[in-house]
Amino acid sequence: MATAIVISSVADVCRAARRAARGLAQIDTARKNAALSQIAQALIERTDEILAANALDMQSGREAGLGDALLDRLALDETRIAQIAGAVRDIVALPDPVGEVLEGRRLPNGLDIRRVRVPLGVIAVVYEARPNVTIDATALCVKSGNAIVLRGSTTAAHSNAALAQIAAQAAVAAGLPEGCIGLVSGGGREELAQLATQSDTLDLIIPRGGEGLKAALQEVATVPVIYAASGNCHIYVDASADLEQAQAIVLNAKTQRPGVCNAAETLLVHEGIAADLLPGLLRALGGAGVLVRADEYVWKLADILSDGGRVGENLDVVMEPATEEDWATEYLAPTLAVGVVDSVEDAIEHISRYGSGHSEAILTRDTAAARAFQLGVDAACVYVNASTRFTDGGEFGMGAEIGNSTQKLHARGPIGLRELCTCKYLVTGDGHVRR
Amino acid sequence: MATAIVISSVADVCRAARRAARGLAQIDTARKNAALSQIAQALIERTDEILAANALDMQSGREAGLGDALLDRLALDETRIAQIAGAVRDIVALPDPVGEVLEGRRLPNGLDIRRVRVPLGVIAVVYEARPNVTIDATALCVKSGNAIVLRGSTTAAHSNAALAQIAAQAAVAAGLPEGCIGLVSGGGREELAQLATQSDTLDLIIPRGGEGLKAALQEVATVPVIYAASGNCHIYVDASADLEQAQAIVLNAKTQRPGVCNAAETLLVHEGIAADLLPGLLRALGGAGVLVRADEYVWKLADILSDGGRVGENLDVVMEPATEEDWATEYLAPTLAVGVVDSVEDAIEHISRYGSGHSEAILTRDTAAARAFQLGVDAACVYVNASTRFTDGGEFGMGAEIGNSTQKLHARGPIGLRELCTCKYLVTGDGHVRR
Repeated sequence: MATAIVISSVADVCRAARRAARGLAQIDTARKNAALSQIAQALIERTDEILAANALDMQSGREAGLGDALLDRLALDETRIAQIAGAVRDIVALPDPVGEVLEGRRLPNGLDIRRVRVPLGVIAVVYEARPNVTIDATALCVKSGNAIVLRGSTTAAHSNAALAQIAAQAAVAAGLPEGCIGLVSGGGREELAQLATQSDTLDLIIPRGGEGLKAALQEVATVPVIYAASGNCHIYVDASADLEQAQAIVLNAKTQRPGVCNAAETLLVHEGIAADLLPGLLRALGGAGVLVRADEYVWKLADILSDGGRVGENLDVVMEPATEEDWATEYLAPTLAVGVVDSVEDAIEHISRYGSGHSEAILTRDTAAARAFQLGVDAACVYVNASTRFTDGGEFGMGAEIGNSTQKLHARGPIGLRELCTCKYLVTGDGHVRR
Repeated sequence: MATAIVISSVADVCRAARRAARGLAQIDTARKNAALSQIAQALIERTDEILAANALDMQSGREAGLGDALLDRLALDETRIAQIAGAVRDIVALPDPVGEVLEGRRLPNGLDIRRVRVPLGVIAVVYEARPNVTIDATALCVKSGNAIVLRGSTTAAHSNAALAQIAAQAAVAAGLPEGCIGLVSGGGREELAQLATQSDTLDLIIPRGGEGLKAALQEVATVPVIYAASGNCHIYVDASADLEQAQAIVLNAKTQRPGVCNAAETLLVHEGIAADLLPGLLRALGGAGVLVRADEYVWKLADILSDGGRVGENLDVVMEPATEEDWATEYLAPTLAVGVVDSVEDAIEHISRYGSGHSEAILTRDTAAARAFQLGVDAACVYVNASTRFTDGGEFGMGAEIGNSTQKLHARGPIGLRELCTCKYLVTGDGHVRR
């Protein structure tokens, strides 16, 4: 039943989405919200179908020898489905980005000009594993007036098909245009290339996956892509930082959820505070199970403290010497590169060389240092005295997000509803001609 | 003398620009404006040098057999140099886009968040012929805090080198970082490909040239490109339009300057007004030297009026039957495709199929038709009762523009100072960690 959804060719699905997009762009907020509410309700009502489809994926996953972590990402149950439906209802509550007048004025010649926010059109979302993305991405696109083409992984094919079908049926029943929610099968690289070159019908591709997916798309895509790239995030502890705050923030940024892109990967410490900060901080990191990759200065400091034993032993922390590669690595794991710098300029220089432009933080009590860091660091989010972990659409008050952009064009930082839109100029006159 | 500028390798120029960009992003408005004023003054003071360099290009151009129109585009004289300097002074007067707080608030957890506008970094501008672009583009980039890498055509090599050198020297003398204005020689496709793949140092490429340049870049570019694409612009005259206004606007949009991207290329007329509007309008178009490519309906109407003579003869207009190709053609010439549609929806459908998303206009006295058109047409600029010729950064009150984007991501419509910027989130806390 759940697999009865007819999966047409990539080009057909994209064309249908393009046709739907024209109608969708003009549908008012009330109707979009009603459709989202019906999607949420349908997910609850048809939980059994979803679970049956998910059971097929889980069985294939087990047969294919997927690890426990991957199986857990794949697994759905009643609670998770209720959470997915709840996330859709949260999106109902968000303001509609479409139609907002971003600016407007009367020109000297009397023409009235307004720049208004409008949907992009058709957005393809390419994702791996977690089936909840099927609905999260769909809800964000519907709310922002965009048609969506979904391409999940083959691992979750049955679950994604069930979820997409339920959402599409509910959407159409609520009056949204046929084809506004499309699904193409996971397929291989060839099918990905096919999707990535539908520039006549697609306005944007958002990949949610690892660097492999990014590289595969970069090679072939003619459709614009917003890469939700990796986060090699830094915390710089300035000479004037509050020691207690610094320790709490570094621990939070590294350990609260090490596997995400806004977790800290490198700690830079001003040499004027290193001897005061590091012994306690290294001990705390060790206690939290963090492996430290230390530069020469930190290594020497720990060596002095080691009292002849293994470096780091006295501090109960496992330490290894940092190599050049460490500074460029996004561990996504409880490992932290730690280095000492001699000034805020030195820290900015290091971040400019190795950072990925995601989230960078300075911890300081010095206004001049804070200002220099916020001006000088070229990243999507630059923090003063706070953890990098806050980079998130929800935390930023944007509601849900579909990813986090580290590129500079169009969207930088969390990609929320507004970032799924473009704008157009509406100009109204009364017979105006140009002289 | 003017050609003494040392042209380094593409990669070297881009690297120098990248280094300069970090400093440039932090320089305040007063200093950027002072540098722009000095550039303007240097251009006037060193007019002789510029004219000497230009004479070399003109001589080569004549020897190479360039046509008069191209030679005129290339030619500089005292007046034109004064105009170029004047355009720089106009940019001094524009507000600085950098540092504007686009939005900001205190989050529920007490974090202060601001989204501020910052320069993109390094922008490469690839252009053909007219040497004034060297300075126009430079001034826009300097004002918006961006370093620039210029690549003009070989035809204008001496002129561009002289202009770029004078600008660069004046900029550095005024305290801007060395390397902030770079020039690479015109070279061939291979050098263009080299430029288009400097993704480590370039943030954006803006091509100003024809479809050939666009195609060449699309094939190789790894650096993001904003294409200032072509304009296949439409005027739709609704059943309720004011006849006199309609005639004036169509004539203006087609004939005021036919060679530019915001000139009209297709006229669509509601069948309810065709018999009233077209005889007078076709006659007026004929009088203005416009060749009309007519669909069957228009052809038949003119045939009836021809009284047995050549179609259009009685109306003093040269007419030819339109082919499918005409609807998709950007003539950039005094030629207009004319067709009849039976509704505003039909007009929107036609524009959606053939338009390039640049500028589209409806002429109507009916509010419902105006609303349907502005909602339904997916283009950068959608006009009601005005000529499409107004699509222009200057006309829109944005000051100068560096081109006109028909793409939907990042910039849509005129590309002014703000569109040369990105944004970053500045987040300030007091020891905030994520729970």
